[in-house]
Amino acid sequence: MFPKNTWYVACTPEDIVEKPLGRQICGENIVFYRDASGVVVALEDFCPHRGAPLSLGYVDNGRLVCGYHGLVMGSDGKTESMPKQRVQGFPCVRAFPVVERHGFIWVWTGEASLADPADIPHFEWANSPDWAYGGGLYHIHCDYRLMIDNLMDLTHETYVHSTSIGQKEIDETPVKTKVENGEVITSRYMENIIAPPFWQMALKANDLAADVPVDRWQICRFTPPSHIMIEVGVAHAGHGGYHADEKYKAGSVVVDFITPETETSMWYFWGMARNFKPDDADLTDKIRQGQGKIFSEDLEMLEQQQRNLSAYPERKLLKLDIDAGGVQARRMLDKMLKQERELQLGSVG
Amino acid sequence: MFPKNTWYVACTPEDIVEKPLGRQICGENIVFYRDASGVVVALEDFCPHRGAPLSLGYVDNGRLVCGYHGLVMGSDGKTESMPKQRVQGFPCVRAFPVVERHGFIWVWTGEASLADPADIPHFEWANSPDWAYGGGLYHIHCDYRLMIDNLMDLTHETYVHSTSIGQKEIDETPVKTKVENGEVITSRYMENIIAPPFWQMALKANDLAADVPVDRWQICRFTPPSHIMIEVGVAHAGHGGYHADEKYKAGSVVVDFITPETETSMWYFWGMARNFKPDDADLTDKIRQGQGKIFSEDLEMLEQQQRNLSAYPERKLLKLDIDAGGVQARRMLDKMLKQERELQLGSVG
Amino acid sequence: MFPKNTWYVACTPEDIVEKPLGRQICGENIVFYRDASGVVVALEDFCPHRGAPLSLGYVDNGRLVCGYHGLVMGSDGKTESMPKQRVQGFPCVRAFPVVERHGFIWVWTGEASLADPADIPHFEWANSPDWAYGGGLYHIHCDYRLMIDNLMDLTHETYVHSTSIGQKEIDETPVKTKVENGEVITSRYMENIIAPPFWQMALKANDLAADVPVDRWQICRFTPPSHIMIEVGVAHAGHGGYHADEKYKAGSVVVDFITPETETSMWYFWGMARNFKPDDADLTDKIRQGQGKIFSEDLEMLEQQQRNLSAYPERKLLKLDIDAGGVQARRMLDKMLKQERELQLGSVG
Repeated sequence: MFPKNTWYVACTPEDIVEKPLGRQICGENIVFYRDASGVVVALEDFCPHRGAPLSLGYVDNGRLVCGYHGLVMGSDGKTESMPKQRVQGFPCVRAFPVVERHGFIWVWTGEASLADPADIPHFEWANSPDWAYGGGLYHIHCDYRLMIDNLMDLTHETYVHSTSIGQKEIDETPVKTKVENGEVITSRYMENIIAPPFWQMALKANDLAADVPVDRWQICRFTPPSHIMIEVGVAHAGHGGYHADEKYKAGSVVVDFITPETETSMWYFWGMARNFKPDDADLTDKIRQGQGKIFSEDLEMLEQQQRNLSAYPERKLLKLDIDAGGVQARRMLDKMLKQERELQLGSVG
Repeated sequence: MFPKNTWYVACTPEDIVEKPLGRQICGENIVFYRDASGVVVALEDFCPHRGAPLSLGYVDNGRLVCGYHGLVMGSDGKTESMPKQRVQGFPCVRAFPVVERHGFIWVWTGEASLADPADIPHFEWANSPDWAYGGGLYHIHCDYRLMIDNLMDLTHETYVHSTSIGQKEIDETPVKTKVENGEVITSRYMENIIAPPFWQMALKANDLAADVPVDRWQICRFTPPSHIMIEVGVAHAGHGGYHADEKYKAGSVVVDFITPETETSMWYFWGMARNFKPDDADLTDKIRQGQGKIFSEDLEMLEQQQRNLSAYPERKLLKLDIDAGGVQARRMLDKMLKQERELQLGSVG
Repeated sequence: MFPKNTWYVACTPEDIVEKPLGRQICGENIVFYRDASGVVVALEDFCPHRGAPLSLGYVDNGRLVCGYHGLVMGSDGKTESMPKQRVQGFPCVRAFPVVERHGFIWVWTGEASLADPADIPHFEWANSPDWAYGGGLYHIHCDYRLMIDNLMDLTHETYVHSTSIGQKEIDETPVKTKVENGEVITSRYMENIIAPPFWQMALKANDLAADVPVDRWQICRFTPPSHIMIEVGVAHAGHGGYHADEKYKAGSVVVDFITPETETSMWYFWGMARNFKPDDADLTDKIRQGQGKIFSEDLEMLEQQQRNLSAYPERKLLKLDIDAGGVQARRMLDKMLKQERELQLGSVG
């Protein structure tokens, strides 16, 4: 149950440096590579000759060559050439709209004529020298919506991430949920608390005292289909919290792109963008390692939750106030799915 | 095809010392833990909030806390509390009758109102200082009834366990099968034979000569649904065999609790109880290791037998005299299954 | 979709030296062993007593003994004996026609009355002291016909085996395909080219200069159901190529026996027969290692091709000139399958 007429993050530029990349996105087997001008191409990963996966081939001067019998595939899905063969009549493979933006490769697996790169959201952190970004990828065997739920309700940090970013005050502080300008926003502000280990580390990295009371904030912004940017941070208590002057703060944006692979598996692109010490590559790496460890703690929970839900598909889950962010996000997704169905019916009728 | 209105061994006390245990029994996903008074609790392993497995959580002063968002589950399957939530309307999860007895945790996955702990059989070896017990657990991918067959016909020892407890005389000595007081009993008495390696070890451990002829006995007692106690032993030949005075004997009880996980997988609790040198912990450990090695020899055979039977479900197997114990045991199980079906029909009608 | 009224290679003599071998061929679970006179026997791998796989047992003086309860199976599928049992009424298991020939064990899984060992093709390399043979076995998860396609169109060498036997000239030289005397033959002759690494090694092994231009040939001969012998070689250029005098040549026969396991998996017996230095065991071993490495390069391609074809079963593949060998081979197979169906209908009607 994932919309297809939308942009998803498929991979990063690093994934297609040397070889083409084969990856399943929204149930489609896709090969990604760069053409001669460096533009990313996304094609069905299926050679029209004998069905070999094109991703087992190689890129020769920007042309994708099948690794089985040398068919050269064009970036439009039409065979360009094949040794000693006339290829005009070869069936085409599907070419997917694909765009490189914000340091990621975005793909559109739905109706191609509807694909407009302008619909990819803007992210300030991705396009300013004041920001640094580091992240990674996890392949998780669960419905991508379980990860949306997870990220829109951070009370789980108290339990799943108790040794790093969790703390009792998250549970004890009510969350606010609102839908605004096509975004679902859940927010929580905690005042005069002790920073948990991860944030003490971040305060120190920002040359701030770590053993004093702080104000802490978490503002989760969901945009469909499955992008979640979370403003997180701490400021020395009494200086305005979220609105405090930069010199009292350590903050960042948790970046989450969640891409369905199948109905019960997904690609989770996680990362952190920060606007302090953006040129400190060691710090970027240290944060990436810390975040990677913390975020890996969710995997077993999500996969076993999926197993439970698959075993009892008829059970209704609770929708508490803390779940409102996920509930609103799913409402947006349901609306997109309804529109896609209507579009298909219309094109048939 | 396993009865559910009956007690099965689910785990041992050691399995629930630190964390809750998640285990599938008779097709039900169950979490086991101890409440504040130390009493064992068995609940559906499904958090009513979002379907997370409760077994990934923790026990806090005897209260089971969901590891995802901190829901506190009561031992009756009713949610006790959740941070900042009113929980009165939360749906309940199923609580299973569960009893700790004979050094094991027993669970009842059928109709709870029928569960009577008095139906758990008595085992002398489990409740007397004259006896010592050691054992282990194997997870085997086969119908639990294949293990019943295995244990009720020990002629397989000659082949599967040829280097430890097997010997030609088992094959050559007829077995007797009878049904008595709700038990199926198969028995075999061998006279004036050489003890196989395991029993030579046991004779020595019992300070008896190992290189002299012995009488050997095997008395398998099945009680439904799937408990098999096997009296085994040797005595110096000519002193009365099974009835010989203790000073000529080395004997023990092989303890087998066989618990269905699914239709084609099971938990096999194996062990040995002995009434000589009960305080010798090193000997207990040595026997456990030896038995664990011997009993592991059955695994590949049982799992491949299951694969063959699954591939040819229509084939009738032979029912020889040596198979009579398993046949009678299955007859009791079929009767229990028939009763359960009638009970369900009755409650519906 | 594999014919069953035909001979397939099942295993090699080395596979049944010590223990019986269990192997699935054409969907049948079969146990192979040698009887007391050394003759190979092939039986259903299913003990009539309790369904245990007979291949987990042992061979005692040429008699197959079930490793579970000691049933002794006769080479005709009738139980011969069992300790303390009368076995006359035991159901039989199926005995498969089986023949040892050309250094392999051949089995017939179809209608036994039609099995004629004379139908096994003759291979000169297997029965002459002038030839040496070395080979191996790969288990591959793909339809056996994908391997037939692979071997009947060697243009893939240019891509899959680019560092050993591939070279651009294979692509550039047209292939000829013909059907003759029940064989499908594809052939390619390349003139005045540089030998690729594998053939330079072979020239040196044959005491010939490796750094001079050569003529190279590839003649693939398919005989149904799935035997492919490929004459391959190089000769110093200008001496007649394929017809050159032996002193200018290094050549061999690539031997391929392809045996279906299931509809989407197979046993691939690969090897090389050569008629130079037949007594040089080190050379045999060196060639085997080289060939094993090269042929392993096909595995990932074939298995992923199978996954693609399974995902899109309705897609038609192209049938180019280079594919004509595979197409003709499949035509023969389809004819055999049609005959088998008619035979079955006839026997029913």
